[in-house]
This record gives sequence, structure tokens and C-alpha cells, in this order.
Amino acid sequence: MTGKSMQAADAQFAARVEESFARQRALQTIGARLQTVAPGLVEIRLDFRPELGQQNGFLHAGMSATIADTAGGYAAMSLFGAGEDVLTTEFKLNLLAPAQGEYFIARGRVVKSGRTLSICQIEVAAFRAGAESLCAYGVMTAMRMLPPKQ
Amino acid sequence: MTGKSMQAADAQFAARVEESFARQRALQTIGARLQTVAPGLVEIRLDFRPELGQQNGFLHAGMSATIADTAGGYAAMSLFGAGEDVLTTEFKLNLLAPAQGEYFIARGRVVKSGRTLSICQIEVAAFRAGAESLCAYGVMTAMRMLPPKQ
Amino acid sequence: MTGKSMQAADAQFAARVEESFARQRALQTIGARLQTVAPGLVEIRLDFRPELGQQNGFLHAGMSATIADTAGGYAAMSLFGAGEDVLTTEFKLNLLAPAQGEYFIARGRVVKSGRTLSICQIEVAAFRAGAESLCAYGVMTAMRMLPPKQ
Amino acid sequence: MTGKSMQAADAQFAARVEESFARQRALQTIGARLQTVAPGLVEIRLDFRPELGQQNGFLHAGMSATIADTAGGYAAMSLFGAGEDVLTTEFKLNLLAPAQGEYFIARGRVVKSGRTLSICQIEVAAFRAGAESLCAYGVMTAMRMLPPKQ
Repeated sequence: MTGKSMQAADAQFAARVEESFARQRALQTIGARLQTVAPGLVEIRLDFRPELGQQNGFLHAGMSATIADTAGGYAAMSLFGAGEDVLTTEFKLNLLAPAQGEYFIARGRVVKSGRTLSICQIEVAAFRAGAESLCAYGVMTAMRMLPPKQ
Repeated sequence: MTGKSMQAADAQFAARVEESFARQRALQTIGARLQTVAPGLVEIRLDFRPELGQQNGFLHAGMSATIADTAGGYAAMSLFGAGEDVLTTEFKLNLLAPAQGEYFIARGRVVKSGRTLSICQIEVAAFRAGAESLCAYGVMTAMRMLPPKQ
Repeated sequence: MTGKSMQAADAQFAARVEESFARQRALQTIGARLQTVAPGLVEIRLDFRPELGQQNGFLHAGMSATIADTAGGYAAMSLFGAGEDVLTTEFKLNLLAPAQGEYFIARGRVVKSGRTLSICQIEVAAFRAGAESLCAYGVMTAMRMLPPKQ
Repeated sequence: MTGKSMQAADAQFAARVEESFARQRALQTIGARLQTVAPGLVEIRLDFRPELGQQNGFLHAGMSATIADTAGGYAAMSLFGAGEDVLTTEFKLNLLAPAQGEYFIARGRVVKSGRTLSICQIEVAAFRAGAESLCAYGVMTAMRMLPPKQ
């Protein structure tokens, strides 16, 4: 149901996601990198640095939100047609545990790809000493933006 | 009902918020500053820089989320007792318009201050050429963390 | 900012909301009534009955959600043009306190009325022995549905 | 990760959920029935009746929310100890499609079972002419209520 057996509408979907990702200055500022781009599933990796921490030294919830929102948006976009852009309209994130790890992987999986709105499940996993644990979990809505003149 | 006539339990509430804020490295990294700390109401200012942008040059939604979540958490904490800390358990943000401005103000207002959980309204306003417009709006839950030994 | 000085696009907005409300069988089943229809603001009243209770006898959260979602949707619709219909795409509700009262008022207020999506603040107040207290608070997104042939 | 290989803390978990469910008058009013109670997973069935419809005759979103919230709350409770009760603190639901079907199944799956807060994924599937389709999807937080005297 989520991310499985989804079909890309445009064979260039991965290149389009990569091109858009590369223009996101905020993601460069925090050091986020695209790790996986499959139809309906995108993963983003963020290595921990103290400069991304909150008051107790864990990853700031806003940094988790940044990579989770981005993963969800690009998961939706991976199923769009050529020339279509994506915009997040809302997201909701539950913080399950302090985000403590050497690195983090945000995952966005399309639950429903609609004509106007797509709904994605989003999550952030922390990797620490080889073990993975879920630290954030939520849902987001991405809007399909048609190219001008259409 | 929200942010009006609320009473701080601890006269040092502003100093406690400021001290905690100063330890948040992620907020320094993006350049966020505390602007207002009143009982039940906290405002955070973020000046726009291209390094905080998304693919079209507007402020990244994750940066809006970072300052909105922080404003809500500290609004809740402003009503806590001495020695109590705050933790965000979840937040939800609707993005109303592209975040375009010279600077942004995130506001967190306490709607309900509970024994364990506090609920805050959160929003981000964009300031552009002297005009203010709302670009994000949502709700968050903050948890009261009691000091050890209590 | 919310519900204040908003302008209806169609002078018949109240009649359209009333007509649509009257077709909602679920609202009749639980006994909800339209109480206020102003541009950008709708209130719905629900009298408590034990048949609407949860395991401890308070109003079931789903009943609060039903009237809150409906109030938000019609608040958005009150600003729509003639012939346009409304659809909820998502909502988020925080339950602040047990819903205990003789009756409840759900309020929906438009925060942003957009071309496609409108964002509304939603809440439910409990009235008990003459006193009002907030028992639910949240946000929802309503989609504008254009009439066929447009 | 969700609902799989979870362990009940109390062997009587199913009986406790059933007993609590039976006291929910609102669920009887709409005709909801418990269908599955496993550790970390609860399913609730609701047969469609016109009295539960919205203005276009589909199941009202508030009815979907009622069974989804309930399924999530009991999924959380299925992992609680004897004597512990559950309370929903917030939920978020995206409506993916008009809720059209002969019957509906709400599913709640525990994502994280915490000491105070549990996070559950919630969804509603519509069954129509033998085919299942997802019509609502979201997340909720349930709070563990300890028995008095503890």
C-alpha cells in the first residue's frame, strides 16, 4: 500500500528529484543528502553535527522536520509527470524519542498519489552504534503544481 | 483564551527560556533570535538568507517549522515551574503561502497549559516591504519534564 | 486575522450552508444544529445525550471531531462562490480536557481562504452549569470543489 | 515495525478492550463493532447506513474519525498493564477519497508504545463490491492513565 509497486509517470523522475534537491540551499546548509529515489519512496540522510543540536545536544526537531518534509515531498514528486513541481501544504510529525545518533535517515512513502494532492507517510530513523530506532513519525500533504501554460 | 492574562509560575521564566534558547546550536546555525518572552507567548525572529532557501528561493518549510516548534515549546515552558524542562511531542503545520520575506516572526501561544501536556497555537509571519502576511499556521503539544528526584 | 472582517463572495452564503447542512444525515443522527453562519465563521451546537458518550460517559472524541470538522468546512464554504462545494482533505484535533457538559459549541474560523485550499482553526467548547471551557482545538484543510463544466 | 511482534503486558488485554468498547454508547449509536484485538493492532467495523452520511451520501468524515480514533486508542491499550486506561490526546486524519462502501474497517497500529504516550498509525478502508480501498489515513497519540492509588 505504501511505496510498493508504484509506477513512475516519467522515466526521468530520479533526475528531476536530484535536480530540485540540488537547488535547496537549506539542505546544503544542514548537510542533508539524497540517498534513495524510487517511485513513491525517497530517503534523505543527515549526519549529526553539534551545530544541528537542541538544548540537550540531540538533533533539533526542526532538523528532523526539514528532512522528513523534504523526503515526503520528493516521494510525491517521484510519481509526477515531467514539468510538474511539488509544494508541501501541511505536515504533522510526532517525536517518538530524543533524536540521538551518528546519522539519521528520513523516509517519505506515498500513501495516495492524487490528481491535486498526494498524501505521504514520513518518518525519521536514528542510527547509533549500528542500531536503528524510529525517532519521528508522521504524515504530510504535497500539492502537484502544473507547469505554466497548461 | 490564548496567551492573554496568563500567569507565570516562576518569576524567572524569561531568564530560563533565554538560557535554554542559548544552548540550541541549531538555532544559532540558522540565525534565529528570541524576540519576545511573555507568560504563554514567545516570538522568535529569523532573518532571511539564501542559505535557508528551498528550490525556488523561499524560506524552506523546515526552517519555518524549526522556529514555530521552538516558539511553541518555549511558550509552554514560560508557564512551567523552576527546574522543569520542555519537550515537543508532536506538531502540525499548514503552509499557507510561499515563505517570502526579509525576515520572519514565529509565534507560539499557549492554548492550554496542562499538568503533563500543553497545547500551543503556532504560526509564522513573513515581513516583506513593511507588510506582514501569515505563511504558516498550526498546533503543537509540549510535554512538561519534571526535574530529577521529584 | 481569523474570521474578522471577511467578505462573502456570494450574498446567499448562509442559505447555501444551511441547505448543505440539512442534507447531512449523520449530523441529524447525532442531533447537531447550525447555530451561526457568518463570513468565515460557523458555529454548530450539539446537546449532550448519553448515546453520544464514550466509556466514561463524556462526549466521544469522534463526536467532537464530527462537529469541529463540519464547522471548519462550512466556515471555508461561507467564503466560496455560488455553485462551489467543499470537501475536507485533512484535520487535526487536540483534546484538551474530557468533553463534559450539557451542550457543546464547535467553531470553525477561516485563517486563509485560498483558491484551492482553505485553512481553518477549529475548536469545541463545553458548556457546563453556565461556564464555558475549551475541550478540543485544532486545524483543518478544506478544498474548494468547482461546479461541473467550469 | 508497526503492530508486528508486539507483546501484550497483560494476558487479559482483549477482554479489557472488549469491556471498555462495550461501554462506549456512541459506538453503539453508530453501529461500530470490534473486529480484531491483537497486541498493538485493533480493527473496528462499521456498516454503512444512510443515517451516517454527509451531504453527498458518503460516510461522514466524523464517523471515519470516530472509528479510527477508537481503533488507535484500543491498539495502544492492548499493550497496557491491567488496570490502566487510555485517553486520546490528539489525532490527525487525512481523507484520501470519498468514503463510499458497504462497510468500513478502521485499523489502529501501535508505532511506539511509551511509558506515558503511545503513537499509533490509523486508517480507514472502504469495502465496495468486494474491493478494498483506503479512504482515511493518519496518526494519533494515546495517553496511558494509571489506576488510582499508584
